[in-house]
Amino acid sequence: MNTLTIGIVNVNTSAPMTQTIVDAARTVAAPDTTIIGVTPTIGPASVESHVETALSQVGVIDAVHRRHTAPVTADHPRIDAWILAGYGDTGREALQELVDVPVVDITEAAAVTAMALGDRYAVVTTLDRTVPMIHARLLTAGLAARCESVKGTGLGVLELEEDAARTDRLILDLAGQALDRGAEVICLGCGGMAGRARELTERLGAPVVDGVTAAVGMAESLVRQGLTTSRAGTYAPRSPKTLTGFEQLEVREKEMS
Amino acid sequence: MNTLTIGIVNVNTSAPMTQTIVDAARTVAAPDTTIIGVTPTIGPASVESHVETALSQVGVIDAVHRRHTAPVTADHPRIDAWILAGYGDTGREALQELVDVPVVDITEAAAVTAMALGDRYAVVTTLDRTVPMIHARLLTAGLAARCESVKGTGLGVLELEEDAARTDRLILDLAGQALDRGAEVICLGCGGMAGRARELTERLGAPVVDGVTAAVGMAESLVRQGLTTSRAGTYAPRSPKTLTGFEQLEVREKEMS
Amino acid sequence: MNTLTIGIVNVNTSAPMTQTIVDAARTVAAPDTTIIGVTPTIGPASVESHVETALSQVGVIDAVHRRHTAPVTADHPRIDAWILAGYGDTGREALQELVDVPVVDITEAAAVTAMALGDRYAVVTTLDRTVPMIHARLLTAGLAARCESVKGTGLGVLELEEDAARTDRLILDLAGQALDRGAEVICLGCGGMAGRARELTERLGAPVVDGVTAAVGMAESLVRQGLTTSRAGTYAPRSPKTLTGFEQLEVREKEMS
Amino acid sequence: MNTLTIGIVNVNTSAPMTQTIVDAARTVAAPDTTIIGVTPTIGPASVESHVETALSQVGVIDAVHRRHTAPVTADHPRIDAWILAGYGDTGREALQELVDVPVVDITEAAAVTAMALGDRYAVVTTLDRTVPMIHARLLTAGLAARCESVKGTGLGVLELEEDAARTDRLILDLAGQALDRGAEVICLGCGGMAGRARELTERLGAPVVDGVTAAVGMAESLVRQGLTTSRAGTYAPRSPKTLTGFEQLEVREKEMS
Amino acid sequence: MNTLTIGIVNVNTSAPMTQTIVDAARTVAAPDTTIIGVTPTIGPASVESHVETALSQVGVIDAVHRRHTAPVTADHPRIDAWILAGYGDTGREALQELVDVPVVDITEAAAVTAMALGDRYAVVTTLDRTVPMIHARLLTAGLAARCESVKGTGLGVLELEEDAARTDRLILDLAGQALDRGAEVICLGCGGMAGRARELTERLGAPVVDGVTAAVGMAESLVRQGLTTSRAGTYAPRSPKTLTGFEQLEVREKEMS
Amino acid sequence: MNTLTIGIVNVNTSAPMTQTIVDAARTVAAPDTTIIGVTPTIGPASVESHVETALSQVGVIDAVHRRHTAPVTADHPRIDAWILAGYGDTGREALQELVDVPVVDITEAAAVTAMALGDRYAVVTTLDRTVPMIHARLLTAGLAARCESVKGTGLGVLELEEDAARTDRLILDLAGQALDRGAEVICLGCGGMAGRARELTERLGAPVVDGVTAAVGMAESLVRQGLTTSRAGTYAPRSPKTLTGFEQLEVREKEMS
Repeated sequence: MNTLTIGIVNVNTSAPMTQTIVDAARTVAAPDTTIIGVTPTIGPASVESHVETALSQVGVIDAVHRRHTAPVTADHPRIDAWILAGYGDTGREALQELVDVPVVDITEAAAVTAMALGDRYAVVTTLDRTVPMIHARLLTAGLAARCESVKGTGLGVLELEEDAARTDRLILDLAGQALDRGAEVICLGCGGMAGRARELTERLGAPVVDGVTAAVGMAESLVRQGLTTSRAGTYAPRSPKTLTGFEQLEVREKEMS
Repeated sequence: MNTLTIGIVNVNTSAPMTQTIVDAARTVAAPDTTIIGVTPTIGPASVESHVETALSQVGVIDAVHRRHTAPVTADHPRIDAWILAGYGDTGREALQELVDVPVVDITEAAAVTAMALGDRYAVVTTLDRTVPMIHARLLTAGLAARCESVKGTGLGVLELEEDAARTDRLILDLAGQALDRGAEVICLGCGGMAGRARELTERLGAPVVDGVTAAVGMAESLVRQGLTTSRAGTYAPRSPKTLTGFEQLEVREKEMS
Repeated sequence: MNTLTIGIVNVNTSAPMTQTIVDAARTVAAPDTTIIGVTPTIGPASVESHVETALSQVGVIDAVHRRHTAPVTADHPRIDAWILAGYGDTGREALQELVDVPVVDITEAAAVTAMALGDRYAVVTTLDRTVPMIHARLLTAGLAARCESVKGTGLGVLELEEDAARTDRLILDLAGQALDRGAEVICLGCGGMAGRARELTERLGAPVVDGVTAAVGMAESLVRQGLTTSRAGTYAPRSPKTLTGFEQLEVREKEMS
Repeated sequence: MNTLTIGIVNVNTSAPMTQTIVDAARTVAAPDTTIIGVTPTIGPASVESHVETALSQVGVIDAVHRRHTAPVTADHPRIDAWILAGYGDTGREALQELVDVPVVDITEAAAVTAMALGDRYAVVTTLDRTVPMIHARLLTAGLAARCESVKGTGLGVLELEEDAARTDRLILDLAGQALDRGAEVICLGCGGMAGRARELTERLGAPVVDGVTAAVGMAESLVRQGLTTSRAGTYAPRSPKTLTGFEQLEVREKEMS
Repeated sequence: MNTLTIGIVNVNTSAPMTQTIVDAARTVAAPDTTIIGVTPTIGPASVESHVETALSQVGVIDAVHRRHTAPVTADHPRIDAWILAGYGDTGREALQELVDVPVVDITEAAAVTAMALGDRYAVVTTLDRTVPMIHARLLTAGLAARCESVKGTGLGVLELEEDAARTDRLILDLAGQALDRGAEVICLGCGGMAGRARELTERLGAPVVDGVTAAVGMAESLVRQGLTTSRAGTYAPRSPKTLTGFEQLEVREKEMS
Repeated sequence: MNTLTIGIVNVNTSAPMTQTIVDAARTVAAPDTTIIGVTPTIGPASVESHVETALSQVGVIDAVHRRHTAPVTADHPRIDAWILAGYGDTGREALQELVDVPVVDITEAAAVTAMALGDRYAVVTTLDRTVPMIHARLLTAGLAARCESVKGTGLGVLELEEDAARTDRLILDLAGQALDRGAEVICLGCGGMAGRARELTERLGAPVVDGVTAAVGMAESLVRQGLTTSRAGTYAPRSPKTLTGFEQLEVREKEMS
C-alpha cells in the first residue's frame, strides 16, 4: 500500500499538547496514513495574545522548515501534507509559501466541516481575548458568513486539561446557548481541545467538530487528488532575499518549494 | 479492515455520466473505501435550467431514498455517506434531511478545496444560464466571499464528452482569463467534467479542482469522525405528512432518519 | 374595461388554504382584476421541510403548467401573471422559466413592501426549522440586508387555522419582541397566514405585511407596465430535453414560453 | 367606484418634466387611480450634484407639505400616496416622516421591479457624477446586492429630451454592455427618462424598467392594503421644534401626521 | 509659525451648542491651529428627525457658503478645512462639493478613531429614532463593518446639558452594556456630547471617542498633507444651474471651488 | 511648548528606507512634533511575501519593545505614539498589545484618509503577490467596502528608488486606470513610496495619499485626545508566559503596558 504521511505542527512549545493533537488525529486517519507531530522549539508556551501569535508563527515556520528540509530516511519519511494545529491566525499563508505540499489550517477545516453538517455554526474557544482573532481568520478565509458566534469559556489553553470535567461542562454550556440562538453545529476553537469531539457530540445531541480531526481528512484528500498550493498568485515562489537573523529560511539557488 | 461505502448520486438520468463520475471518485478514494454510483430513474437528461433543477431534485431524492432504504446485503452494503454530484442547487438540503448519514455537495466541496489552495477561486461551468444558479448556491452555502467569478464555456452538459479536446481548450481559455484577473485556483463547475482535473492542472500550471474528487475525501472524513447532519435545527426529523404522489417518501412510525 | 387575470398557486395540496389565500388577494385587487386560485394535485399537504420544499416545487410546476397551457375560454381566461404563494424557496425561478408572464413570490413581495414602510423588517413564521429556508431565500433574492430577524411561532402550517386567537397571540408576541429589537415592520411568514394583516396591524400599532396581498399589486403593476421575465440570461428559453417521468414538461417545437 | 389618488412630486422645478412623469404614470395606473403631479417652487432646475440634492429635498418637502395640508375639495382631492420621482437620495425618509400616507421612491421601485424580472439589474443614468449617489441610495435601501452596475450616459437631466434619438441610443449602448456583463434587466436611472421603457424594452430585447411606472403600482398596492409608514421607530411622529426659516413645517398641537 | 484655521459648523441653530463644540475642539488643536465656530441661521433648533436633517443640510450649506465666500481679513481668516459637527447624515457630501478645502464629518472621524483603538466600536446616541440615520451614514461611509451597535439613551439633543450627571450616567450604562457584548471602544453619537470624552474614558475604563475632537486632528492632517476633496468623480465642479430660492448658491463664472 | 514624540518603525531592515519614511513624515508633522525612526535589526530586507511578513512582525516587535523600554533621556525621549510603516499585515495588533501608547498602521491611515477625500479609493502597490495581503488587511480592518481595487506595479520594494521616473510613471498609469474605473482617490501601497504623494497628486489631478504622512496626523490626534488602545477586550494586558527564544518579551511583575 502506498502510504501517506501527514505532519501536524503544534503552534506552541508544549510537547504534551502535540501528543494530544496527534492522538486525536490518529483516531480518524485512513489506514494508509501516518501522522507525525512536530513541536516548535521557539515561541510561546501557549498562544492567547497577538504578540504570542506573531511569535508562534516564527516558531511554526522554523519547525516546519527544519522538518521539511531534513534528509528523508526510513524513520523520517517525507511529509505529504501539513496541518497547522492552531486556532486563529497562526501562519497558514506563510507555510503555504514555504513548503511544496498542501497545508491545512484547523480553524478553516473545522468551519468547512461544520458547514457540511448544519445551517450555522458556533465556535467555542478559550479566552475572550482570542475571539476577535478567530473572527478575523474566518473573515479573511471567507468562512464567516455562516458563523453564528465565537465565544470564550474563559479557560486558558493550558488550563483545558487541568480539569477535564470542568472544561467539558463549560464547553457544553456555551454550546447549548449557541444552539438556542440558532447555531446547529459547534466547533471546538482550540487545538488543545482535540480529542473531545465524539463524547461532546453525544452529550450535546448535535455535532461538535474538532478542527484537528477535520483537517486530517482534508489533508489526505488534497494529497490523493494530487493538489497543492497554487503558485499562480500570492504564493508564487519567493525571490532570494536577505533575512537577517533567519538566514536558514533564505531562498537558495536550488530551493525546496 | 473496516470498510467504508460512499454513494454518489448523479443528478441526471445519464448512466454513462454516472460512470464517469464514479471512475473519477475511485482514483482518489482511500484504500478501504468503496464507491457506489446511483443514477436517478426520473428527471432530466441533464440539468441546465431552473425547471430541470427542480425535477432533478425529485429524481435525486427518489433514487437516494430507494437505495438507502433497500435491504442491506453483501452485494448491497449500507451507504456510509452520500455525495450529490450536481453543480448548483440540486437538493443537498433535502438529502441531509432524508438520510441519517453525511451528505456532501460537489459545488461546496470544490469551493472549500479551492480555498485551501489559493486566495481566490473561479468556477468554469457549462452554459451561461447556469451561472446565477451556481452563484446562488455559493452564496447560500456561505462560500462566495472568495469566488472571483463563475463563467460559462457555452457547452451543454451532454456536449462535454463529444469532443474532449475542445472541452479542455474552452476550459483552459476561461481558466487562463480568470488567473489574469486574480483567481489562483479553478473549479470545474459540472459533475460531467469529473476526471479532467489532473491533466488540466498540469496544462494550466495552477490547481484545477474537480468537485467529485474533492467530495470523496470530505465524505470519508465525516464518516471517520463519526459525524453526521445536525438534527438540532432545520434538519430535525420530519413529522408525518401526506405527500400526494410521493407516498413512498412519507415518514412512518419507524423512520430511517 | 380591459380585465387583468392573476393566478395564485398555493404550494401545498390544501384547497381550503388556497381559498384563504384567494380571499385575502381579492380584498386588495384592483377593480379590473380577477383572481384565480390553483391548488397542486401532487406534493405535500404542507411545506415545512426541505424534502417537502423539493416536492412542492414539482407540484407547483405541474399545476401551473397545466393551467397555463389549457385552452383559453370565457370561463377559463388566460392568466396575465402568477403569484407563488409559498414562503421560502418554493420554485419562483422555475416558474419564471416555465411561463411567459410575470411571476411574483410572496416572500419577496412581503419583503419589498415592508422595506417601503420602515427601516428594518422582521419575519414571523411557523416552525423554527423553516427559518434557515426563509433566510436563504431572502439572501439569494438580495433582500436580506434590512431583515432584522426571522423567528418561528412553533405552529405548523396546518395548525394556523386551528385556533385563530392563539395564532394571532403568538404572532403578536414575536412581533412585539422584534419591534423592541429595532424592527419597524413585520412580515407574516407563511401563505397560510393570509388575511390577518389588517387586524394585526391595528393590534400591533405597526405595519404587518401579508405577502399574498403584497404580491397582488406587484403582479398587477408588472402586467400594466407590459413587463415580464427577462430572457437575456438565466431565464432564456429552455432547449429540448428528455425529462423522464415529467414528459408533459418537455419543450416542444412550438413552446408556450 | 372608490377612487384612489396618487401624488407624484418631481424633484426639480421643471414643470415640463413633471408633465412627462405624470404622462408616464397615467399609462400604467389602475382604472380607479387619479395621478396628480406636483412641481417644487424652490430648488434646482435639475438635480445632478450633492448640493442640488440637498436643495431639492427642501423643495420637495415644501411642495408636498403645502399640497398635503391644503384643504380638500372636489378639485383638490386628498392624496392617498406619494411618489418621489427623483433617482438617488432625494428625501424619501423625510417625506415618510412628513405625511401620514405611503411614500414610494422611484429608485427603489425600479430596483425591486427589476429584481422580479431577472437575476441582476443595471442602472443607466445621466452624468457619471451621480453614480455614487445612486449606489449610496441602493445600499442604504438594502437593494444593492443584485445591482450589476450603475453607469452614466454623460447626458445631463435637461439634455435628455433635447434629442430623443441620441438619448435612446446612448441608453441602449450602455444597456447592451450591461447585458454582456451579466445583467438581465435595465433600470432607467432618472425621473426624466420616464415614458421610454416600453419602446426600449422592445429594442433591447430585455426588460427596461421605468421607476415612475414601477412606483405607481407599488403606491396603489400600499393604499389598497391599508398600509402606511411605520411609526414604531425612526419615523415616529416628530416633536415640536423651532425650525428657523421653515416655520411652516413646525409641528403644531394638532399635527397632520 | 504658519497658522492653520479650521471652521466647525454646527448643524443646528443653537449658539451655545456651537460654543460647547468649539471648546472641545480647542482642547486638542495643535499649537498653530485656530478654531472658528459657525452656527447656521436657518434650520432646526436640533436635529433628531429626517425632516430636520434635510433642513439642517440647507442651513449648513448656507452658513458655510457665506463664511467661505466672505472677504478674508485679519479678523476673518481664510478657513483651511471644515468640520461638520452633526452625527448622522448632515450633508458632508454637499459641503465637499461646495468648498475647495477638506471637509471632515464627525460621525466618520469618530468611527475611524475608534477603529484605531480596538476591535469593534459602539455608538451611544440621543433618541432611538436617530439610530437608523447613524447606521445609514456608517454604511454609506463604508465604516459599518466593525460597528457593534448604535443605541439611544432616550435623551433629546437639547436635554443633554440639562442634567450632565444624568447624561453621563445614561451614556455609561449603554457603554458598559456594549462592552459586555464585545465592543471595545465607545463613540459619543452627538455633536452636543462634545467635551465629555476624557472623563467618560476614565470612568468607563475603555476609550470613549468624541467625534468633534477626533475630527480636529483629521482636518489638520489633511491640510498639512496638502490634500483636498477629489474633483475626479462625484465631487467634480458643479455646472451653472438655476437654484430657485437659493440663488446665492448658484455657480458663477468665477466660482470659489 | 509641550512636545509630542512619534516613533515610526519601518518593517524591513533597510535604514535608507527608514530615512525616506522619516523625511516624509516630517513634512507634515505639527510644529511641536518630533519624529523618530526605528529600523528593525532582524527580519527581511524587504517585505513582499507571507514568510517575510511573519518574520518582519517579529523584527518590528523586537525593535519597538527595545526602544519603548529603553531609559528615557533628553536625547532619547519617551515615544507618545507609534506608526507602523508597512503596507499589509505587519503586526499592528501585536504592537497595540505591546505598548501603552497608540499605534497607527499606514495601510489603515491611508484608507481612512482616502475615504475622506472621495467616494472610492484604489491602492497601487508593488508586486502582484502582495495584493491579497493588502486586501486581507483592509477586510479585517473593516475598510474594504469603498476600496475599488488593489493593483501591483510589478516593482519590488527595493526597486522603487532605483529609477524614480519609472516608478512614478508606473504608479500614474495604474492610478489613471483606477480613476477610469470609478476610483476617485489613490493610496500609495508601500511604505517605500513615502514622499511622492504631493507631486503625484499634482500630476494625476486627483488626490494621491501617502500612508506615512496620513498616519502622522492620526497619531498626533490620538495623543492630543489622550486616547490609547482599549484594554477592554482583545488587547487586554498579557498574562505571564514562557516565550522560548524571545524571553526579552516575557511579561514581568512590573510590565510596561
